[in-house]
Amino acid sequence: MNVVLGIDLGGTNIKTAVVREDGRVLGDDRRPTLAQEGPRKTMDRIAQSARQACQKAGVSLSGIRAVGVGSPGPLDPKRGVVIFTPNLPWRNFPIVKELHRRLKKSVFLENDANVAALGEAWRGAGRGEKVVLLLTLGTGVGGGLVVDGDLYTGAWDVGCEIGHIVVEPKGPKTNYGNRGTLEQYASATALVRMAKEMGVRLPKGASWEAKDIQDSARRGDTKARKVYKIMGYYLGVGLTSAVHLLNPSVILFAGGVSHSMDLWGPVMRKELRARCFQASLRGLKIKKAALGGHMGVVGAARYAWRKLGAA
Amino acid sequence: MNVVLGIDLGGTNIKTAVVREDGRVLGDDRRPTLAQEGPRKTMDRIAQSARQACQKAGVSLSGIRAVGVGSPGPLDPKRGVVIFTPNLPWRNFPIVKELHRRLKKSVFLENDANVAALGEAWRGAGRGEKVVLLLTLGTGVGGGLVVDGDLYTGAWDVGCEIGHIVVEPKGPKTNYGNRGTLEQYASATALVRMAKEMGVRLPKGASWEAKDIQDSARRGDTKARKVYKIMGYYLGVGLTSAVHLLNPSVILFAGGVSHSMDLWGPVMRKELRARCFQASLRGLKIKKAALGGHMGVVGAARYAWRKLGAA
Repeated sequence: MNVVLGIDLGGTNIKTAVVREDGRVLGDDRRPTLAQEGPRKTMDRIAQSARQACQKAGVSLSGIRAVGVGSPGPLDPKRGVVIFTPNLPWRNFPIVKELHRRLKKSVFLENDANVAALGEAWRGAGRGEKVVLLLTLGTGVGGGLVVDGDLYTGAWDVGCEIGHIVVEPKGPKTNYGNRGTLEQYASATALVRMAKEMGVRLPKGASWEAKDIQDSARRGDTKARKVYKIMGYYLGVGLTSAVHLLNPSVILFAGGVSHSMDLWGPVMRKELRARCFQASLRGLKIKKAALGGHMGVVGAARYAWRKLGAA
Repeated sequence: MNVVLGIDLGGTNIKTAVVREDGRVLGDDRRPTLAQEGPRKTMDRIAQSARQACQKAGVSLSGIRAVGVGSPGPLDPKRGVVIFTPNLPWRNFPIVKELHRRLKKSVFLENDANVAALGEAWRGAGRGEKVVLLLTLGTGVGGGLVVDGDLYTGAWDVGCEIGHIVVEPKGPKTNYGNRGTLEQYASATALVRMAKEMGVRLPKGASWEAKDIQDSARRGDTKARKVYKIMGYYLGVGLTSAVHLLNPSVILFAGGVSHSMDLWGPVMRKELRARCFQASLRGLKIKKAALGGHMGVVGAARYAWRKLGAA
């Protein structure tokens, strides 16, 4: 069979899928990561998940041509190492070697936001677009840039960190010394921080998660709505910089916080209209990502297909 | 002869050069633009300059393979039109058609900062680098990005406008509705505005040009030095965004204000060290452009060579 395996490694779930060269998913699997068991156990669970996805697809693991992996980072894709990830207790873990040992196939590693962008550009909301900029709005803010079907990752693969562009030079400090980055205004973590700073009151039983702030805003709570307006404002500021620098044809939003686009989107669009060159904004599309739960696995599979030389 | 003609069109001077495929300049010419005479007269002057450069190079104009033009913008390179330039009284001028009529050769148009980046990546301070980001610090701030020897210009050729990224969201207004862009802190125009705001006093006879502020700072004037520190601070803020987004291997500075790098460079580097990921900053080179007065013509020639399919 002419298929590859796509793996989406997250802090909560492992997802795998068997994917054809045309993007069709023949079989998939999803199970908890159980990160506390340590990286080697997680590798075993990935291998089990891979076998299950193959079984559903009606192919044997040995029939897989290659494996693509999307992982939270920072990574060293060339050495095949996960340097560090906030949601997994790993340091300098040789994921490519460990997966190769279990799956006996070539394994290609890229960061999760990059493979998400690749997947959406291939078979999602970025299909047919020349320059796709994707933002993942989750615990943090990640970014991926696809130009003419290929990832742009910079001189040594640490580019497209759109969560770390500066939108308020004297804003809150990050843990690495920067200040006022986009991530500090447009992530789930930022929503909670801003809600606390603004004195948003949550109903009894709420647990100070982004979802709770969203519920309050939807119920019309003025302070919670204001939090989303601040988020939209800084997304507009940050994306003005990205639009002027990169001239994307489409900007896509993925991740948990993308689902509250109705709350932050209008202010973001207003800022973009006020600040961007007409020439850059005219024709620019702004959308939610379209592949849903398959985004990571399809993107990881596409990454493997490109490494195999597929058009 | 296997040569092309590079043209560098500026508000003050026209420069032309006959350039070989290996980057060697065989003959060149430089004369005033005299923009007030109107675009058609300027076109005639370019053709005269081209003939002069050919004569110096010992080739006939008919022996030229193609023509590359670097022009201030915004442009429409595909239609070959200069839409507008602040320093030339032109609107929607079909420069490619007009030059083709005079020179009888294929003419390729790109914006001046882009061809400068291409020239420096080819034969200047960006030689051998994977990702070259060049900033022109002049009346405005322009940018050019070269990746693996080719220009990155975005989905419809309006990318790399690094002068228009936002570094201070509530900063001074631009003429198109944006606020606090890099250009408003790091251009000659910005230096003069900030010097006036800060109450810098210039010696008698000084004319409020960037050069005068520079002289004052070099003489130790505290307020003038402060102006350069503000410039350095915002260059550090803006380049943090560019570094995280683009992961360049080298950042080059060109244009009149690049010559006062000793005044703004240290603060810029301090901000970059404080704000950037180690992984992005380690290995990043920061330099002045190296081709001097030939940067524009060599870059325009390189653009023509690439269009002819040269490696």
